[in-house]
Amino acid sequence: MAGVALTDRQRLDWLRLIRSESVGPRTFRALMNRFGGAAAALEALPDLARQSGRTLRLCTPAEAEREFAALQHQGGRLIALGEAAYPKPLQAIDSAPPLLAVIGAADALLRPCVALVGSRNASAAGQKFTARLARDLGEAGFVVVSGLARGIDTAAHEASLGTGTIAVLAGGLDEVYPPQNEPLFRRLLESGAGISEMPMGWAPRGRDFPRRNRLVSGLSLGTVVVEAARKSGSLITARFANEQGRQVFAVPGSPLDPRAEGGNHLIREGATLCAEAAHVIEALLPLVEFEQWPGGGGAVMRDGAGEAPPQALWDELDLPGITPAPKTELPAETAWQDKAWQDKALPSETSDQGINLLDLLGAAPISIDDLVRASGRSARDVSRELLELELSGTVLRQPGGLLTRLMP
Amino acid sequence: MAGVALTDRQRLDWLRLIRSESVGPRTFRALMNRFGGAAAALEALPDLARQSGRTLRLCTPAEAEREFAALQHQGGRLIALGEAAYPKPLQAIDSAPPLLAVIGAADALLRPCVALVGSRNASAAGQKFTARLARDLGEAGFVVVSGLARGIDTAAHEASLGTGTIAVLAGGLDEVYPPQNEPLFRRLLESGAGISEMPMGWAPRGRDFPRRNRLVSGLSLGTVVVEAARKSGSLITARFANEQGRQVFAVPGSPLDPRAEGGNHLIREGATLCAEAAHVIEALLPLVEFEQWPGGGGAVMRDGAGEAPPQALWDELDLPGITPAPKTELPAETAWQDKAWQDKALPSETSDQGINLLDLLGAAPISIDDLVRASGRSARDVSRELLELELSGTVLRQPGGLLTRLMP
Repeated sequence: MAGVALTDRQRLDWLRLIRSESVGPRTFRALMNRFGGAAAALEALPDLARQSGRTLRLCTPAEAEREFAALQHQGGRLIALGEAAYPKPLQAIDSAPPLLAVIGAADALLRPCVALVGSRNASAAGQKFTARLARDLGEAGFVVVSGLARGIDTAAHEASLGTGTIAVLAGGLDEVYPPQNEPLFRRLLESGAGISEMPMGWAPRGRDFPRRNRLVSGLSLGTVVVEAARKSGSLITARFANEQGRQVFAVPGSPLDPRAEGGNHLIREGATLCAEAAHVIEALLPLVEFEQWPGGGGAVMRDGAGEAPPQALWDELDLPGITPAPKTELPAETAWQDKAWQDKALPSETSDQGINLLDLLGAAPISIDDLVRASGRSARDVSRELLELELSGTVLRQPGGLLTRLMP
Repeated sequence: MAGVALTDRQRLDWLRLIRSESVGPRTFRALMNRFGGAAAALEALPDLARQSGRTLRLCTPAEAEREFAALQHQGGRLIALGEAAYPKPLQAIDSAPPLLAVIGAADALLRPCVALVGSRNASAAGQKFTARLARDLGEAGFVVVSGLARGIDTAAHEASLGTGTIAVLAGGLDEVYPPQNEPLFRRLLESGAGISEMPMGWAPRGRDFPRRNRLVSGLSLGTVVVEAARKSGSLITARFANEQGRQVFAVPGSPLDPRAEGGNHLIREGATLCAEAAHVIEALLPLVEFEQWPGGGGAVMRDGAGEAPPQALWDELDLPGITPAPKTELPAETAWQDKAWQDKALPSETSDQGINLLDLLGAAPISIDDLVRASGRSARDVSRELLELELSGTVLRQPGGLLTRLMP
């Protein structure tokens, strides 16, 4: 698959769009679909916002250029969705970041990855097992992905320094958290990479960590949870992995050990018990050989397994005015050229206001697909009216793109 | 279900038959099917043996009466397969003992049972967890079944003394093993029971323990393995439980703990992870409510999960001359009357020697069913000829009833 590449101008526009107020990955995609390109979307956004009586702060060209410069200064670069350097498994997820900031050995992103996550307050045994697992997975050719946190994450990165490991940061690439892992981060860049979807200088807030976790699982063919209490970020990662159609592994532990509760729970819910690296390798090797990167719709674990991410992970959820496209198929790679977007965004359908969407909407969340089916109207037409309804504050979009009517 | 009861005379004949040389539970059943009753089988056995140039030691009436007396002296009794006091789940297994020696509160045998088994060299944590599990299962109304061994077994019995627990002995009921658990055995008889299929005075040999394990699992709706190394008796019990169509539970543990290897392995093979009593209760309660005691043919765990019992668990395997009936349906309860056996044993089929069975037999084991199909002859006729072939030493019956031809 020959990758396409954005022009410098396009990359700048993409960066400006994704850095503008209330635009997240799904909204970005919706805007691209609606306006055919980032430049056109940037042009249209102020008007869209005005229609709902809001103002929307756009990222200026100067700001975007400063981010480019800061990243370059660190030796990093921005990889765009659809480009050859963008990791295919991540591209397959619902909320893939349009731009990925990368430093270090970016080619690690193109090797088969396994996520290894777990408790910050890990036991000595948990860390020892993690190190053994990471080493064995590395020797088997896998890149170990984790979140640079204390405990399990640290043990995973350290044991795979020689074979390649990727740290996914919740803040900007110059905002390493926790600070004491700054030296580890520097070391892992030699044969691995650091990545982030956040701007340089962005200090991570609490909500950025679960959001980041979707990238940890999304980069990876499988996610292994080593030690996790009942309510923990690792279970959010497992939930993401499952929703992304990726295999979830969990390391068992004694029922008397609270740190084993999360893992044991995951196993009961359908995660694969992992007691050694071979259990992961034998499950993932077929995916590597056939280069199959599963997309969403994971149904291996029971519904509700893992920990649901907190509401409003995405800034875009607060944006009235854009109907996102969570289920939209990725366009072919060439379609990422702005021109191709433009073509796709101009269908010949005409509006048909036969059925009032508001009558179809209520307190129970409903998907756009269902709305299209129920209304008998075109998807484009439904999207357009939803936009108005959202801008007027009558309709609210929930996580996952489901819509509810706000009752007065 | 009104139980039938053997007459004193029948019970004596049954005891003589099962205590005769080379007669095990399956052979017992085959003989009953062939000769219609224990008395007739006892009469026919010497001739059968003579035909193959062997002598076969029968249990004398005096010996059987001495066993009765010894058991009665201990306050025990013999319950026959098909009687109301015989536990239904045990009756459903392939190799149910025709007679069960019981002391203590025999009604415990009629309550829903769960087996709790594990390592003799159990960790303190394993014993603590076992005690908690046994207590919670007892409070939920389950009788805890185990094997009176050190470690996990002991912890399971001790914690369920108040709610009822059953010890299944590998030797006679007067041969408690290990001896230091004699006091525990006495205490558990107050609200629970001790059972054995072996004669009074029988000191357990090594091979009697795996044989005994099938009764532990067979009595129980489910078997929980708490701590078990890779090669251990508990895994044999798990294997029996699976083959008997019963649910297998395993308690997980750290992959760094060798005592968790067996349990983690079972979970990977399909056993249900048990981290608390609720996991067992929620799985077994439906069986209790609907009084469903699954029979053989368990297919929940992958083939080969658990530990295969050693070959030649049964003395009857050494017996040439009897075609056992491992897959034979249990006759209706009334059929356990000798008269009913007699009726069943006299079909009107006539022999047809068209196809030589020896030609159909080779080194590869084959079932009687397959032999019947392949030969096109009646089951009765095939059985009869197999008997001759076995007596002559030409055909050998393998565990599970499969037949091979002994090549000269």
